[in-house]
Amino acid sequence: MTLSLICPTKDPAPWLKAINALAPEIDLRVWPDDGNKADVTFALVWAQPQGIFSQYPNLQVISSMGAGVDNLLQDRSIPPQATVVRMVDPRLVRQMGDYVLAAVLNHVRQLSDYGQFQQQRQWRPLPPRNLDQVTIGVMGMGQIGHAVATRLSQLGCRVLGWSRREKNIADVQVFAGQQQQPNFLAASEILVCLLPLTAETENILNIETLSQLPQGGYLINVARGHHLVEEDLLSLLDNNYLAGACLDVFRQEPLPQEHPFWTHPKITITPHIASLTDPVSVAPQIVENYRRMESGESLLNQVDIRQGY
Amino acid sequence: MTLSLICPTKDPAPWLKAINALAPEIDLRVWPDDGNKADVTFALVWAQPQGIFSQYPNLQVISSMGAGVDNLLQDRSIPPQATVVRMVDPRLVRQMGDYVLAAVLNHVRQLSDYGQFQQQRQWRPLPPRNLDQVTIGVMGMGQIGHAVATRLSQLGCRVLGWSRREKNIADVQVFAGQQQQPNFLAASEILVCLLPLTAETENILNIETLSQLPQGGYLINVARGHHLVEEDLLSLLDNNYLAGACLDVFRQEPLPQEHPFWTHPKITITPHIASLTDPVSVAPQIVENYRRMESGESLLNQVDIRQGY
Repeated sequence: MTLSLICPTKDPAPWLKAINALAPEIDLRVWPDDGNKADVTFALVWAQPQGIFSQYPNLQVISSMGAGVDNLLQDRSIPPQATVVRMVDPRLVRQMGDYVLAAVLNHVRQLSDYGQFQQQRQWRPLPPRNLDQVTIGVMGMGQIGHAVATRLSQLGCRVLGWSRREKNIADVQVFAGQQQQPNFLAASEILVCLLPLTAETENILNIETLSQLPQGGYLINVARGHHLVEEDLLSLLDNNYLAGACLDVFRQEPLPQEHPFWTHPKITITPHIASLTDPVSVAPQIVENYRRMESGESLLNQVDIRQGY
Repeated sequence: MTLSLICPTKDPAPWLKAINALAPEIDLRVWPDDGNKADVTFALVWAQPQGIFSQYPNLQVISSMGAGVDNLLQDRSIPPQATVVRMVDPRLVRQMGDYVLAAVLNHVRQLSDYGQFQQQRQWRPLPPRNLDQVTIGVMGMGQIGHAVATRLSQLGCRVLGWSRREKNIADVQVFAGQQQQPNFLAASEILVCLLPLTAETENILNIETLSQLPQGGYLINVARGHHLVEEDLLSLLDNNYLAGACLDVFRQEPLPQEHPFWTHPKITITPHIASLTDPVSVAPQIVENYRRMESGESLLNQVDIRQGY
């Protein structure tokens, strides 16, 4: 049994080091020089070349190196007997919470406006708004969405959630499904997208949904670029319906040089840094799943391939 | 008995409305047209003309319209029999907490850097830092400092406090007095000033104290402009000892057009908006103190004039 890292866009070194520190007995290899592919039973992957899994006849586990599996699941070469798992990382959840909180505070406390005033040497106090005066809608009540919603609520915001299915979360009013989406959107002054990317959620942030936000609404997208129809956001910003957006993810990353988002005065851009998986933090769950594979036990953090998350 | 508002730089209208809504029986007047000054027993003041109190022979209470009393106490015409009180406003405390949190998150999550990268159309992820990896030192453990420190600690930061006297605050290591100041400063990667302005604390943020912060330290001043020796901050930023500063208060406000802070790439400026007293929120304590004055009871939120806060 062997573990191969298939991650052409990521440096494998910190992952090798973190896993090796915990379990020196695991035979670790790195694609493409991972020897006899028939030995590989566990693949740890990120942005793998599509179709790659057909080269590995004995794969039992495919583990995403991140929380998202949208790119992974598009691969038609995932063998039917393999179990797909993902990372569930409390540090990543926490990091996402910090980022969303920063984006919310920047908007509510008008720090982008003050930044522009500073460039013009303008001393111009604005009527203040407080965190406890805004209603924030969080789309996606998975582990990350749930934690972010709870944290915002603990800081005094009114928080709504939207989820495919009904959920019970303390201090968060959760709306469920298509039917309750209009009421959710109509009340969300700040909309935070934390949905998984699936066929159902692709393009979910479009002119129809975003124009149901209250006028002056604000969008924070920290999920995936393909959730957002970029032209629709631009038109709602340019006709002054929405107040602004903070975007960490884009349909094409890195965001192309000529993209209109870069220079838009109402758009704040960060380069997909809202939350990053820390190899040291997730190495224990990789090792645990490797051992469970060896002993034939059921794995942690399994992905439902049909649901897409 | 009469209450006069002496606040040349503030609009008295919302204050009159808020007090009147609670206690229509109180005779409210507004300086300078406040009639017979011998009637006035309660003065509600902000940025009063120095020396004004000698015109009011029967003053019993002087109430600051804000939490700070530094400007008020410089007035040598405060009659010895008058009690000075200030506002203690949970909304203001909360607002200050939001602002400090926003400033901390902006620094830790490098959002100013990303703002500069956006202007240059640069997609450039930086190594991430988390809120739970920084140590924040809060100077001033009064009501506001205490609340801000507790809040930062609840969000996972390591928080130190510095106070004139020893204090016991859950999850905050409090250093006391001159003697423990060096150890406090040496450990504070982010320094937040929430001190009252007194003869002892004026110019406390100077080249000697600020250069005791760890290299790469960051300053957040939300107390008073006169706490900071502005040239000292500039020299520590320009020789790359400190990483930056977020300043809401200045020695001269509005900050003069030609001031070097406006264009400094490491300085974030807001126009004294971190926290503002809300008349509706504090009207009950004004009315309560007015009634206590009438019945001769001891007043809420008294200021120790000798201590200066």
